[in-house]
Amino acid sequence: MAYNLWYWPGLQGRGEFVRLSLEAAGIEYRDCARAEGADALVSNMAQYDRKPFAPPYIELDGMVIAHVANILMFLGERHHLAPSNMADRLWLHQVELTIADMVAEVHNVHHPIGGGAYYEDQKEAAARAAQQFREERIPKFLTHFEQVASANEGDWLIDHRWCYTDCSLFQLIEGLRYMFPVRLRNFADDYPVLMRIHDQVAELPGVRSYLKSDRRIAFNEDGIFRHYPELDAE
Amino acid sequence: MAYNLWYWPGLQGRGEFVRLSLEAAGIEYRDCARAEGADALVSNMAQYDRKPFAPPYIELDGMVIAHVANILMFLGERHHLAPSNMADRLWLHQVELTIADMVAEVHNVHHPIGGGAYYEDQKEAAARAAQQFREERIPKFLTHFEQVASANEGDWLIDHRWCYTDCSLFQLIEGLRYMFPVRLRNFADDYPVLMRIHDQVAELPGVRSYLKSDRRIAFNEDGIFRHYPELDAE
Repeated sequence: MAYNLWYWPGLQGRGEFVRLSLEAAGIEYRDCARAEGADALVSNMAQYDRKPFAPPYIELDGMVIAHVANILMFLGERHHLAPSNMADRLWLHQVELTIADMVAEVHNVHHPIGGGAYYEDQKEAAARAAQQFREERIPKFLTHFEQVASANEGDWLIDHRWCYTDCSLFQLIEGLRYMFPVRLRNFADDYPVLMRIHDQVAELPGVRSYLKSDRRIAFNEDGIFRHYPELDAE
Repeated sequence: MAYNLWYWPGLQGRGEFVRLSLEAAGIEYRDCARAEGADALVSNMAQYDRKPFAPPYIELDGMVIAHVANILMFLGERHHLAPSNMADRLWLHQVELTIADMVAEVHNVHHPIGGGAYYEDQKEAAARAAQQFREERIPKFLTHFEQVASANEGDWLIDHRWCYTDCSLFQLIEGLRYMFPVRLRNFADDYPVLMRIHDQVAELPGVRSYLKSDRRIAFNEDGIFRHYPELDAE
């Protein structure tokens, strides 16, 4: 039985982290709001007692699971997209939550005042936020991910096969390089292990065919990773 | 065997969400950095291959678990601080992650440009961020929590006994009311179910004695919930 995935149509956003693991594993899903529209998403979401706070969420057999890291932990256990022992599960979830934290900070770069105002109305604050993010947060987060990935003996974040968190690292790297091409010009030299994981994920058969398909929405300035040249610099 | 809890000394911060559930359940723990200092925390954290990105984290038997929601999920399962079936576990974790998202936005109110600059150097942006937060985000989050708590037939967030997420709601409410006493003057009328859960948590024997003890650090302007009167308004 296919999962229903609900996320805003027209952008990658946080939904993309879920799509990538589903596609990598060849798990069947329907991207509901792309077919039915954003209004259908809003009314679908409102019906539940155990309401998601926000998309993305998945539905299966009357169960609703929201929050990227929570969804991926569930899919990881159910479809063996991650080691099953407790210590490994908690560790991967922890890394996934750190990715989620960085993604929230990415959003904050172009909306430091808040999501309720346009970027154009907070450009000055965004320029300052972007400078801090480029100079302090990017190296702090990426060095962390590089270190913890380097500590694994295998080619992936954990053990010797890909897990859902590898897919999320791929998307994080894709997004950051789209948003900050100048800042991350030397990404491959600075973070060779992350670069290797990124390239390996891109070569997974499910991901490779997904990236070529029209299911992969292009990055754009409605998503989380936005390329505003004025926010990028060495 | 007692857990080691590691968190910055001198502030409640994110560590407080972990402390509250430990105290409510009467689980033994050592608040290590309060005894050994922040330097000990930094060097302890650096030793691990599976490094936390940031405190709080707990140690037990060589295992290290970081990220508030991840720690609480683990404690919830191990110490029966939450229902054990999968749907309930995922649901509570989802609510806990939404609390974590709101806490991150709380921090952003007084540091919209970033944590690398002082509040004093971003007061103008903070005033705008605070206005959006008061007018849009507080009702959006709190109405969500009120709704999902109201959907439960029992007196708590889920079923008929307290779970770790109830403790986190308590702390969220405490913090918001410390930070925005004017904005939340009518909290009890606007969010009666949340108020009831808050008061019930405060009356749990473990929490009641904790709040009276010197283990409970007072709110202060080094923490996440900061009372800057200029950021508060109706």
